[in-house]
Amino acid sequence: MNACKAGIRAILILCCGAGAALPPGAVADSETLAANAQRIEQRITELSAFGANPGGGVSRVAFSKADIAGREYIKELMRKAGLVVRVDTAGNIIGRREGSDPSLPVIMLGSHIDSVPGAGNYDGDLGVIGAIEVTQLLHEHGVGTRHTLEVVSFTDEEGGLIGSLAMTGRLGASALDVVSHSGMAIRDGIRAVGGDPDRLQLARRKPGELKAFVELHIEQGAVLHEDGVDIGVVEGIVGIRWWDVTIDGVANHAGTTPMNRRRDALLSAAELTLAVNRIATTLAGRHVATVGRIRAEPGAPNVIPGRVVMSLEIRDLAAEQIELVHQAIVAEARSIATARQTPISFAEIDVASAPAPTHERMRRIIAGSAELLGLTHKLMPSGAGHDAQDMTHIAPTGMIFVPSVGGISHSPKEYTSPKDMANGTNVLLRTVLAIDDGALD
Amino acid sequence: MNACKAGIRAILILCCGAGAALPPGAVADSETLAANAQRIEQRITELSAFGANPGGGVSRVAFSKADIAGREYIKELMRKAGLVVRVDTAGNIIGRREGSDPSLPVIMLGSHIDSVPGAGNYDGDLGVIGAIEVTQLLHEHGVGTRHTLEVVSFTDEEGGLIGSLAMTGRLGASALDVVSHSGMAIRDGIRAVGGDPDRLQLARRKPGELKAFVELHIEQGAVLHEDGVDIGVVEGIVGIRWWDVTIDGVANHAGTTPMNRRRDALLSAAELTLAVNRIATTLAGRHVATVGRIRAEPGAPNVIPGRVVMSLEIRDLAAEQIELVHQAIVAEARSIATARQTPISFAEIDVASAPAPTHERMRRIIAGSAELLGLTHKLMPSGAGHDAQDMTHIAPTGMIFVPSVGGISHSPKEYTSPKDMANGTNVLLRTVLAIDDGALD
Repeated sequence: MNACKAGIRAILILCCGAGAALPPGAVADSETLAANAQRIEQRITELSAFGANPGGGVSRVAFSKADIAGREYIKELMRKAGLVVRVDTAGNIIGRREGSDPSLPVIMLGSHIDSVPGAGNYDGDLGVIGAIEVTQLLHEHGVGTRHTLEVVSFTDEEGGLIGSLAMTGRLGASALDVVSHSGMAIRDGIRAVGGDPDRLQLARRKPGELKAFVELHIEQGAVLHEDGVDIGVVEGIVGIRWWDVTIDGVANHAGTTPMNRRRDALLSAAELTLAVNRIATTLAGRHVATVGRIRAEPGAPNVIPGRVVMSLEIRDLAAEQIELVHQAIVAEARSIATARQTPISFAEIDVASAPAPTHERMRRIIAGSAELLGLTHKLMPSGAGHDAQDMTHIAPTGMIFVPSVGGISHSPKEYTSPKDMANGTNVLLRTVLAIDDGALD
Repeated sequence: MNACKAGIRAILILCCGAGAALPPGAVADSETLAANAQRIEQRITELSAFGANPGGGVSRVAFSKADIAGREYIKELMRKAGLVVRVDTAGNIIGRREGSDPSLPVIMLGSHIDSVPGAGNYDGDLGVIGAIEVTQLLHEHGVGTRHTLEVVSFTDEEGGLIGSLAMTGRLGASALDVVSHSGMAIRDGIRAVGGDPDRLQLARRKPGELKAFVELHIEQGAVLHEDGVDIGVVEGIVGIRWWDVTIDGVANHAGTTPMNRRRDALLSAAELTLAVNRIATTLAGRHVATVGRIRAEPGAPNVIPGRVVMSLEIRDLAAEQIELVHQAIVAEARSIATARQTPISFAEIDVASAPAPTHERMRRIIAGSAELLGLTHKLMPSGAGHDAQDMTHIAPTGMIFVPSVGGISHSPKEYTSPKDMANGTNVLLRTVLAIDDGALD
């Protein structure tokens, strides 16, 4: 039985590292460590100055001036937490704290600080600032770990998980040519933040190098907030498939074509949109299916739509379930197409991401940590994509959710309370310490 | 009983005008005059060279170089038909043929030669070339009329009936500032084609100045073609009302928002779109109602639509019927809004045009002319707008439709056969001669 399981953590003397808050030779009981909600809140606020929008929130898209300035702020926080900072060739910022046993693999924790345009102040940011808080607490209280800890702030998460794809050796060469929200190609963006796109292989971490990866993140959904639960234990990141659905009718003059001589593509599209919702709602499961974009062509008020192109997105934790929902929708589309004489075709868009379940024991460690802290918790999928989904490929991965008020995200109205941020950080701390103590062994 | 009704038309000797085809003193029986289908077809083809698109059809938007070149071609045809050509201050081209009795009002006939972008070769064009054919036949055969005839080619029909609105004194000052498809403000466009936008009042024709106005046009619908009828006797131009319909839901992350926690504006929009069609199809009447444009906001495949804005257009020959259909749709919208908790609002767009019935006796003259020529005919509304609708305000107005193959219009595939064009031109000729003979008196 290891110390953690006994409920007592070994007291270690931090014998090295600059800036320790305790006097040499002093010790601390890690059981008493607790995240500083006020400090987290203050740092969230300070970080939100970089790329701040007049109406609130930020636009800190990867590689922009705001992102580069925000990255410098994060590096400074890392140094204050006693971390040794470097930037890997993918532009990921990595703050490292050596463990007492150099033969052990690294425990990595973190998230990202880049944002979508018109974003809020919590998505990604909390995971980086919370991870820094964890290491700062250890640093200030002179608590050492056996495993080396690395806090990561990933490059360009919002632009397609770029940093974590590179770290897991899965970033395709063509992705580097994509022009990001900054206006820069990702290749040039990586260079602008201190990476080296020509030597991305050096950013790669191999399976076995990492003991575990843990990401703290706001839920970006309303489940925890509405259900009054403190902590979400993420079961996995859902898989996503997208289709462009094209419905062909006959465009015609809306004034001269009587109602009974029309083949209106939008009527079929409307039926199909309702069918997508009905199928997703009535089929057993936790999948979601959405039509978010729709365009009628030619798109004039006085022309009967001759063609409609609309998006279809299906997400679920199981690839088979996504396929099941999709097949039900295709079958319904077939009968609409026949009834209305409007051919319907589905073209899958190559953005699919496979479901990425988290590590089963990581879930139990996170749930146990919440339990120990007296926090309510529930298992749940992540409907949104995260760097953690890439990390599942090279390390046992866990993910901790905290409530998003009203479920609002990618919006200046995004909000998570200081108390919830501290709760999540405390679960992250306990999880890291439990892993360090052998809970994954 | 006048000569026309007796079936015998007086034989007049054309004693003036240059270029008469008959030798001085020669006479012709107008009963034998018949449109030259080949000449009409050839002129349609020649006109279609101005603004020709590589894939067929034309883009001869008003005021463009193609329009200006096409106008010169039309002026030349008018001169060949013995007409005296002028351009009024609204840019309307008017070719005049004096009648024998200067005290009588003018009989006007014509249409327009400007097009929408990506148009076909018949919409408007046939009405101008057909009207020129009528006067050219009279000219070549030395047939005079009591009333002066004026062939008109109206300015910028497709951009909002600009020329006919000016001729009827109903063109608002602000319309002149609208930027047309040519990229030019209408004011500047009128100047570019030889008009004078500062003195538009000089283009105005007062009630009583015109004995009648007759427009020959392709149907732009499939009714005549599908029903195998030669001639459409237009009962009137339908009134049109447009609304922007806004449906408000709650935008949210399509991955993190479970199906049962959504307020998806597009689902309500889909229901309403189907309801519009169902109501228009089941309510008694000949109205049409169309949703031709739809936009979901923010419009991303991974965001639940928080707002949808869609168009609603209703047309009918009776304003009361349009209102009836609209009210039924609003009632249905109200219950969708309540059921789905997505408020729906209707904002009427100021493009409404009131129904414009044609002159009852003009309809009978046109039908009688078709009858005399052995052509089948039927009464029908015009679902599309035409210059004729403006002309109803100042003159007894009639409109003659010929079949559009497949009902296709505003497309390079627009097609009307030479035979149908000649049929329509012959009906136009008979109608003009009947009016000249007193059929309207």
